[in-house]
Amino acid sequence: MSIQIVEVGLRDGLQNISSHLSVDARFQIVKYLRQAGVRRIELGSFVSAKRLPQMQETSNLVNKVLQASHQQHSVLKGGTYFAFVPNEIGFHRAVNSGLKELSIFMSCTESFCRKNINMDLDQSKSNLLVLAKLARRLKIKLRGYLSVAFFCPYEGKVNVETVLSLTDQMLQAGLFEISISDTIGAAVYSDVVQCMEAIQKKLSVSKIALHFHNTRGTGLANVAAGLEYGVKVFDSSIGGLGGCPYAPGASGNIATEDLNYMLSKMGFSTGIQTQKLINISKKLNKKWQIKLSSYLERAGILKES
Amino acid sequence: MSIQIVEVGLRDGLQNISSHLSVDARFQIVKYLRQAGVRRIELGSFVSAKRLPQMQETSNLVNKVLQASHQQHSVLKGGTYFAFVPNEIGFHRAVNSGLKELSIFMSCTESFCRKNINMDLDQSKSNLLVLAKLARRLKIKLRGYLSVAFFCPYEGKVNVETVLSLTDQMLQAGLFEISISDTIGAAVYSDVVQCMEAIQKKLSVSKIALHFHNTRGTGLANVAAGLEYGVKVFDSSIGGLGGCPYAPGASGNIATEDLNYMLSKMGFSTGIQTQKLINISKKLNKKWQIKLSSYLERAGILKES
Repeated sequence: MSIQIVEVGLRDGLQNISSHLSVDARFQIVKYLRQAGVRRIELGSFVSAKRLPQMQETSNLVNKVLQASHQQHSVLKGGTYFAFVPNEIGFHRAVNSGLKELSIFMSCTESFCRKNINMDLDQSKSNLLVLAKLARRLKIKLRGYLSVAFFCPYEGKVNVETVLSLTDQMLQAGLFEISISDTIGAAVYSDVVQCMEAIQKKLSVSKIALHFHNTRGTGLANVAAGLEYGVKVFDSSIGGLGGCPYAPGASGNIATEDLNYMLSKMGFSTGIQTQKLINISKKLNKKWQIKLSSYLERAGILKES
Repeated sequence: MSIQIVEVGLRDGLQNISSHLSVDARFQIVKYLRQAGVRRIELGSFVSAKRLPQMQETSNLVNKVLQASHQQHSVLKGGTYFAFVPNEIGFHRAVNSGLKELSIFMSCTESFCRKNINMDLDQSKSNLLVLAKLARRLKIKLRGYLSVAFFCPYEGKVNVETVLSLTDQMLQAGLFEISISDTIGAAVYSDVVQCMEAIQKKLSVSKIALHFHNTRGTGLANVAAGLEYGVKVFDSSIGGLGGCPYAPGASGNIATEDLNYMLSKMGFSTGIQTQKLINISKKLNKKWQIKLSSYLERAGILKES
C-alpha cells in the first residue's frame, strides 16, 4: 500500500528555528528531497518577513523551483510544490509567484488563532471562505492545516467535536485535504485513535492527513495509530527540523527519515529512499550547522553484516 | 488498567555509557525512582568489573538498597529490586548479596550470544537450565531477557519462530517473565504486531514484557503495538539513559518519563508521577553531567494556562 509523505521542513521546520537559510540553500534542499523521491514539498510561507524572517524571499524560492521544474530532465519535474498563506494578501502573492497549490490555517481554539494569525475564530472562518472562493475561481488547490487539534498551549485539551466540525467546514469549503495537526506535540496514541474513530464515523478518512510534532517523543506512535485507521498522508520535516515555541529546546516535526524508515519497514511504499534522506540531514547538520532531532541521522538504517 | 514499568537504567542504561556513577549516586537514583513511584528496579549486573567497569560494586549497591528497604518508613520499602547475572558465578554473588529476584540473558542468534556472554547458543541454553534449577532450589525469581528478538546486528532479521521457541523454553524452565528485547532498536510497529500475534496464538501474553530501545525513534510506537496485544509490562530507562554499541551516538532505552507520559495519557495507571521522573533526569543531567535522550526532560509535560 502506498503512503504519501508531505515534506514541511522548509516551512514548519525553518519557521521554528533561528537559522536563516538563503534561497540558494533552500533550493538545494528541494533538489535533494526530490532526488530522494519526495514528491510533495511545502516551500515556505507568504507571511510578513518582519514577522518570520526565516520565510523571507519565499517568492524567489518558488520562482526558482517552478522554473526548474518546467525544464526537461530536471529532478524538480514531477514534484508538487506549495506554500502556506495566512490571508488574501499572501494568497495573491503566492498565486502571482505561479503556485497552483496553497496551504491555509485554521485553529481549533480562539487563543491559538489570535496568537497565530491575529484573527479571532469568526474572522478566521470568514478568511477561510474568502480564500476558498478565490481558490475556486483561480483553480488553486487548497490544503488546510487544522492546528492544535489535540491540545492547545493556552486552552488545554481540544474536543473531538471541535475537530470534526472544523474539518467538515474546511472540506465543505472545497479544500482537498485537511492536515489534522498536533501543533505542540502533546498527543498520544489514544488521542489519535479517538480522533480518527470520530472522523471515520462522521466524515471520510480519505481526505485526512496527519501532522505530528515529536515534542514529547510520541510522533511515530501517533503515526501508527493513524495507519490503523487507514490514513495515507503524513507530514514530516527533513531531519526533524524545527522546534516548539512553547517548549524551548524541544524537537520539531517528526523527522522525514524516521517516518520513512518506519513506513518502509512496515511494508508501505512511499517512493522515498531513507538513506538519501539521511544524507540530506547530514548536510543540513554539517554544511548549514543546523541542530537536528532525527534518529536515523545518528543511528543509520541498520548495519547488517 | 494497570501497567508495570520496569526501570532498567542502572543496568542497561549505565552499561552503555562511559560515565561511571558511584554507589552513592546510584543509591540516590534508586531513592528518587522510588519517590516517583517506580516499583521494579534493576540495580545492576553481577559481571566482571573488568568487562563492565560501570557495573562495579553492584553488590555494595544491592546491600545498601536492601538494607534500607528493610527499614520502616524508608521510601525503599515496597520496591522490587533485582540484578542481572550472566552465569553461575554471578548468580551466587547476587544471591549472597541478598537478592530474591535476578534477571538472565538469552540471545536469539548465535553471533550475538557469543559476543555478549562468550558462550554459543547451546552452552547458553545449558546455562539457562543450570540457573533455573539453582533458582528453584533457592527460591529465587528469574526474569529472562530475550535479546535481539527482532533484529541482530550480525545476523539481520530474526524469525518469529525463534522468538517463540526460546520464549517457550525459558518459560518451561520456570522463569516468571520474559522480556522480549529489541536490543539494537531496529524494530517497528508491524514487527511487534507480528511477534505478539504469534505469542498470543501459541503462548501466553501474561508472562511477556517488552523491552525497546529508541535507537531509531520507534520505541513508543512499539509500546503502542504491545499495548494493543495486552502486554502489561514494559522496560525503560530513566532519562533514556544509555546508548547503542552498534550505533555510536544513538539513543538508549526508551525514557521512563516518556513512556510514563504516554501510558498515563492513554489512561493506564502505572503508579508513577511523570513530573518526578523528569526531576530525576534533570538531576542526572545537571548533577552527574549525563547526556540524556528524554523528550519530557526537554519539553515538560504540557504547560497549560
